Amino acid sequence: MTETNEFKIEGRNAVIEAYRSGKPIDKLFIQDGLHDGPIQTILREAKKAGTDVRFVSGQRLDQMSETKKHQGVIAMAAAYEYAELEDLINKAKEKDEDTFFILLDGIEDTHNLGAIIRTANLAGAHGVIIPKHRACPLTATVAKASAGALAYTPVAKVTNLNKTMDQLKEIGMWFVCARMDAPEMYDVNMTGPIGLVIGNEGDGVSRLVAENCDMAASIPMVGDIDSLNASVSCGVLAYEIVRQRRGK
Amino acid sequence: MTETNEFKIEGRNAVIEAYRSGKPIDKLFIQDGLHDGPIQTILREAKKAGTDVRFVSGQRLDQMSETKKHQGVIAMAAAYEYAELEDLINKAKEKDEDTFFILLDGIEDTHNLGAIIRTANLAGAHGVIIPKHRACPLTATVAKASAGALAYTPVAKVTNLNKTMDQLKEIGMWFVCARMDAPEMYDVNMTGPIGLVIGNEGDGVSRLVAENCDMAASIPMVGDIDSLNASVSCGVLAYEIVRQRRGK
Repeated sequence: MTETNEFKIEGRNAVIEAYRSGKPIDKLFIQDGLHDGPIQTILREAKKAGTDVRFVSGQRLDQMSETKKHQGVIAMAAAYEYAELEDLINKAKEKDEDTFFILLDGIEDTHNLGAIIRTANLAGAHGVIIPKHRACPLTATVAKASAGALAYTPVAKVTNLNKTMDQLKEIGMWFVCARMDAPEMYDVNMTGPIGLVIGNEGDGVSRLVAENCDMAASIPMVGDIDSLNASVSCGVLAYEIVRQRRGK
Repeated sequence: MTETNEFKIEGRNAVIEAYRSGKPIDKLFIQDGLHDGPIQTILREAKKAGTDVRFVSGQRLDQMSETKKHQGVIAMAAAYEYAELEDLINKAKEKDEDTFFILLDGIEDTHNLGAIIRTANLAGAHGVIIPKHRACPLTATVAKASAGALAYTPVAKVTNLNKTMDQLKEIGMWFVCARMDAPEMYDVNMTGPIGLVIGNEGDGVSRLVAENCDMAASIPMVGDIDSLNASVSCGVLAYEIVRQRRGK
């Protein structure tokens, strides 16, 4: 399933990353009077790509902006398309690496979704999987919060997270989720083909998905409150997987 | 230096945590017709604390709300006060632990600030230090993003981050910041009294502060983009410190 509406990419880094990743950009709006380095870079990329460039007032950009942080640059591009599960599997195969997917069981906040796609990219995960019925659309806000990672890291939307987990178990994947009373993450073997399951901001991982996980791991917590921010929690667990994979 | 304006705490968890931490709440606004568990808990706490409770329409709450995610509850409390540096040092002494502070060199996003205070609380840091000239006020948005941790983890505002670092070096603290070309964090000894320095979302750690750090460490990154989200990066490094401190 793909979606192809036009959407906005806002902010200098997000637009530069979009060009560098080869994303087709139809139209570029630049604030009148800006001539700094990043703007020059964007204009060079726009020329190479043959983008239609328009210089407009800051006020006009403010009106167009979804994120309210356009930094003088808004690009119009085809909406990011959801990937197929096969694309994620192939990405691991191409790199000859054990599969490493991040599954989001109901992340609702677009900033968290963006930050998680960003983490997935840098921690070497081959993609992110979200369930269809609670999926955030991959909008300008997600793209900006992902700092451009959305252009590189595929996001697949699946009908039923549990069925997808079953399917991936058949090709040898294991699944781990965070649970407060589970053994500490250092003591849980998370090497090999793995899917890291991150729960919803308020409710955590849903019961059926948690039961379908092969392992649970806890992040040590010594403080007064209950839980880390979902994207921070994902970062800490993803990097524990990185540490174990690197044998550190 | 303290600031004592009244401010709003919004959302169920944030309000419950504020009561539990003993924060004085002057007034509580609850949406008419809500009777679920968390609301009952809040009403019990309000009764114990002698808070003036008012039942109002959802529309009224929407008007009052800063975060637009009030979940039917807004409390009016004295603004969180910045702590003094001494408070942070004493917190480590009371717990008989090596000091562990998180220094923010220009974090601008209130969601990141809140998520970092939340991480500081759970990773066992004794406080967060921010420079005065770029300090975010500790508002409802920060309190909500911190999931209540702001009520427990002190935040100190200092005139000059470098001078504070010099002062803390005299009591035996070491400072580490993230730098891409530095040795991997696993290979940098971050046990002992430590200050973890996190840079600004766009520009990273400023030159003078970076030069004043004793060590630099890198988070391994294999992806296509430049950097993690600031609060995720803080979480990964803070938890590497936790791992090393626990001898894992």
